[in-house]
Amino acid sequence: MFRTVGLVCKHGDDRVVGTVERLLELLQGHGASVCIDEDSVSACPDTGLAELPRQRLGSETDLIIIVGGDGTFLEVARSLDNPRARLLGINLGRLGFLADLYPAEIDSHLGDILAGHYDEDLRFLLDTRIRSNGRERAALRALNEIVVHKHNIARLTQFETFIDGHMLNSQRSDGLIVATPTGSTAYALSGGGPILHPNLDAVVLVPICPHTLSSRPIVVDSDSRIEIVIRDSMDNGAELTGDGQDPITLHDGDRIVIRRRAEPLHLVHPKGHDHYDVLRAKLHWAREL
Amino acid sequence: MFRTVGLVCKHGDDRVVGTVERLLELLQGHGASVCIDEDSVSACPDTGLAELPRQRLGSETDLIIIVGGDGTFLEVARSLDNPRARLLGINLGRLGFLADLYPAEIDSHLGDILAGHYDEDLRFLLDTRIRSNGRERAALRALNEIVVHKHNIARLTQFETFIDGHMLNSQRSDGLIVATPTGSTAYALSGGGPILHPNLDAVVLVPICPHTLSSRPIVVDSDSRIEIVIRDSMDNGAELTGDGQDPITLHDGDRIVIRRRAEPLHLVHPKGHDHYDVLRAKLHWAREL
Amino acid sequence: MFRTVGLVCKHGDDRVVGTVERLLELLQGHGASVCIDEDSVSACPDTGLAELPRQRLGSETDLIIIVGGDGTFLEVARSLDNPRARLLGINLGRLGFLADLYPAEIDSHLGDILAGHYDEDLRFLLDTRIRSNGRERAALRALNEIVVHKHNIARLTQFETFIDGHMLNSQRSDGLIVATPTGSTAYALSGGGPILHPNLDAVVLVPICPHTLSSRPIVVDSDSRIEIVIRDSMDNGAELTGDGQDPITLHDGDRIVIRRRAEPLHLVHPKGHDHYDVLRAKLHWAREL
Amino acid sequence: MFRTVGLVCKHGDDRVVGTVERLLELLQGHGASVCIDEDSVSACPDTGLAELPRQRLGSETDLIIIVGGDGTFLEVARSLDNPRARLLGINLGRLGFLADLYPAEIDSHLGDILAGHYDEDLRFLLDTRIRSNGRERAALRALNEIVVHKHNIARLTQFETFIDGHMLNSQRSDGLIVATPTGSTAYALSGGGPILHPNLDAVVLVPICPHTLSSRPIVVDSDSRIEIVIRDSMDNGAELTGDGQDPITLHDGDRIVIRRRAEPLHLVHPKGHDHYDVLRAKLHWAREL
Repeated sequence: MFRTVGLVCKHGDDRVVGTVERLLELLQGHGASVCIDEDSVSACPDTGLAELPRQRLGSETDLIIIVGGDGTFLEVARSLDNPRARLLGINLGRLGFLADLYPAEIDSHLGDILAGHYDEDLRFLLDTRIRSNGRERAALRALNEIVVHKHNIARLTQFETFIDGHMLNSQRSDGLIVATPTGSTAYALSGGGPILHPNLDAVVLVPICPHTLSSRPIVVDSDSRIEIVIRDSMDNGAELTGDGQDPITLHDGDRIVIRRRAEPLHLVHPKGHDHYDVLRAKLHWAREL
Repeated sequence: MFRTVGLVCKHGDDRVVGTVERLLELLQGHGASVCIDEDSVSACPDTGLAELPRQRLGSETDLIIIVGGDGTFLEVARSLDNPRARLLGINLGRLGFLADLYPAEIDSHLGDILAGHYDEDLRFLLDTRIRSNGRERAALRALNEIVVHKHNIARLTQFETFIDGHMLNSQRSDGLIVATPTGSTAYALSGGGPILHPNLDAVVLVPICPHTLSSRPIVVDSDSRIEIVIRDSMDNGAELTGDGQDPITLHDGDRIVIRRRAEPLHLVHPKGHDHYDVLRAKLHWAREL
Repeated sequence: MFRTVGLVCKHGDDRVVGTVERLLELLQGHGASVCIDEDSVSACPDTGLAELPRQRLGSETDLIIIVGGDGTFLEVARSLDNPRARLLGINLGRLGFLADLYPAEIDSHLGDILAGHYDEDLRFLLDTRIRSNGRERAALRALNEIVVHKHNIARLTQFETFIDGHMLNSQRSDGLIVATPTGSTAYALSGGGPILHPNLDAVVLVPICPHTLSSRPIVVDSDSRIEIVIRDSMDNGAELTGDGQDPITLHDGDRIVIRRRAEPLHLVHPKGHDHYDVLRAKLHWAREL
Repeated sequence: MFRTVGLVCKHGDDRVVGTVERLLELLQGHGASVCIDEDSVSACPDTGLAELPRQRLGSETDLIIIVGGDGTFLEVARSLDNPRARLLGINLGRLGFLADLYPAEIDSHLGDILAGHYDEDLRFLLDTRIRSNGRERAALRALNEIVVHKHNIARLTQFETFIDGHMLNSQRSDGLIVATPTGSTAYALSGGGPILHPNLDAVVLVPICPHTLSSRPIVVDSDSRIEIVIRDSMDNGAELTGDGQDPITLHDGDRIVIRRRAEPLHLVHPKGHDHYDVLRAKLHWAREL
């Protein structure tokens, strides 16, 4: 049973306020104690709820309800210091892979979920550190994917990839996508990668426009230590981004180390949630030529 | 330490006899007790070794040395009743993914392996049962992959795929490849599938020439129950094969159930064996345009 | 202006009779002389129209109206001795690439077409001859594609391909699709081929599950002489089909020679017909993830 | 017969001088009048040859010999005002698609070529104009390809493509490659495009990481007017490059119009040159798994 609920709201969406009002009625009717994410107050100002900094939401609530879409969900997933709380996404827009409850379904499903009748789904994040000249100079976290990409559209990037210290290959390409199962249906799919079932303990490496015909996506254990060393000697540089956040510039010799975050995320779905239903709907699998 | 060694030999390869002679010298020098697979006697007739039926090799020896190539290795892997023994492949031909010790390396590596200094690698097999009208009518085992394929080149096959009872999709295509990580570098690769690291507990489903643009390979947990139901209503039939063995004819309504075999295979490699080295060499990853 | 019109009807579709009745009213109202394909009489028995053998339809009419779908259209396209007549397809089923006029559009468009206000579109067919031991033993024609395919699902086929006498490559694969622009949106698309604009004077060769990572579809001039030599030494045989017709068995050493038919087909579309509209609708190009 | 020969030399390659010396001996022995490209003098300073501005080389010589590699060849191909002269490439590095004569082959082949015994091969260039707010603000030329690419690695670009005024599609993706047959073996191949025979009058459009599963490369007539309209409303911009030259920044609403240059290039090859030999060697087609 969930006793303490934290709310996070998308900014700039006028459907948030009405959805939160209905949520609050239901939550208070169930006797839940509710607080609001500090950063969400401006998106939903008049709730009168106690405020909590984002970092503490994960450890000081039982359930975080994210009102927005997959983008808001990704942002919350990356920002929790300790992701002990369960995450439930209310989807204000089109069908999402992460936020899968529509506002219209709140009335019929939220009671069951608060009472402990729900399906749970574990996901993992990728922790990435960038080392230059032997020193760590940046770190970031992603739920979907880490992307290394050439900076100059007119040039290729050259880099080497190592898995647990073993060289996988050296490639010249536009870049590389390292995706979690969650991210396998996002940018990695555009790059030609396979779909990974969301509960698989695996990571997929998808080359972007490789300068060879003999390249293929490769799926490795999620416990692997993935290291990418930038070798581009033509001074064109490269960039790194996680979940489509602001890019970080990379230089020759930079080492990018990607590891699975130890603490998993706990996603909450209504009972009977079927991931393949979502896949079929999102990927238009019913559609034949 | 390996005490009891079983030998299996490829048929029709005149390099077998000399390789076995050298093996026997070394094995007997190490005090190992050696027997030969009953079916291999005609391929290597004058060893004077005790004979053992194939099914019992896996439980009554510590180590099975397979002299041949990946094809012989696959055949042995499928045929053991109880695959407790470790498997070591001596490769008489081109570089293999399974049989990775060359005859010229026997002298330098076999002693260490017999003494217990080796790398071990777990692989799993797929057990497949075919049910028609509610009754099981055939079963087969594969280490690389199970393939369902249309029978008539001029027609498509229609079938539905279920994962753990959840419908994945209904597709019209030339067929479907269900491959282990071991098989991900075999036929599944020709079909456009990703490479799976050999130790991943996963299975990949690769559609063959699907009649839609929105299909993709999907990777699921190896513990999944994969069920394929043939829906082809045009009486063209379909066929099923495991590891390229003789095909079994399928009819409308047949249900194919694929499960991971509970008992893993134990592959033996020389110390320091690097799977990525083999991948790079076999897939010509050093080759740029 | 079209004066003499031939009708061809799909078998086994009960929408044919009503559609033909409406066509006849309009055609006779425009003073056109109408005859019916001999083979179509049983599909549409009571028209009282003069009958003409299929082969002569192409030379003795100005316009052939095909009532059915893409399948019927393909069959007519292959069967005409001299395809001088224009071809117009009435589509009884789902949107087609070839038969693009719906029954409901007959009233509004047929008058204009008969009066000479229409768009025309040239397509070409592939003529294929199979030579065994220096002698031609079979010939067939296709509008979409010629497919060479392995016979045994458990084996690959090996063959060499020559373009205008120059060796393209030797490949082991499941087979090869040689498609016209018309066929580029059919089976070749399932095999991973590109789309060719229908008026391009080109042919695309698409390998099916090639046993190499370095294979790609290749587009060559439609005037090229394409020769495929079956090299499969394992006695598994192969098969050849054109437009999904009954397959012809191939043997080791067989030579398949594919040439563009000299006489083009003339397709008739309503004024303003846009091929890209059809592409977008059929391939679901509006659909984003 | 070639009477007037122009030389163009790669910069920064110390094999140029020796190769040019040998060329000059042979050319002067054949009585050819030789001049040097103005921009190449610093790469090969002591020839004493008359200098000619690059733009005039194409109209004032019969044969331009390019000493370098495919990169130098591309640069010359783009820079000629009137490409009447034949082009011959001497390849100082690895096997090229354009520069296919090795220095060691000069002695045996140049005499024949100068005497008029050679194979000729027509290629075309793409002329591109960028229009902003109804005014042309930039133009560039390419022999391999024109690439439109997102500017920010963390964002997609949205644009519409029109062929001869008909809308092809609207896509969100990383970008689009519009390649000539010559360029089909360059970046377009990395993007997943087909190979086009070099003499095909066609252009291929290859989407880069499209945000949909239903996208495919499409091949259209080289006479087509290809128009790309940037629709990205998120202010991320996009970039355009031709043959990997310095990128031009694109803005929302920019229209890129791509047309085939009317004047073809004439490539000279030694008699018996086989394009498929080069393809097989460059793409490692002999390499099976």
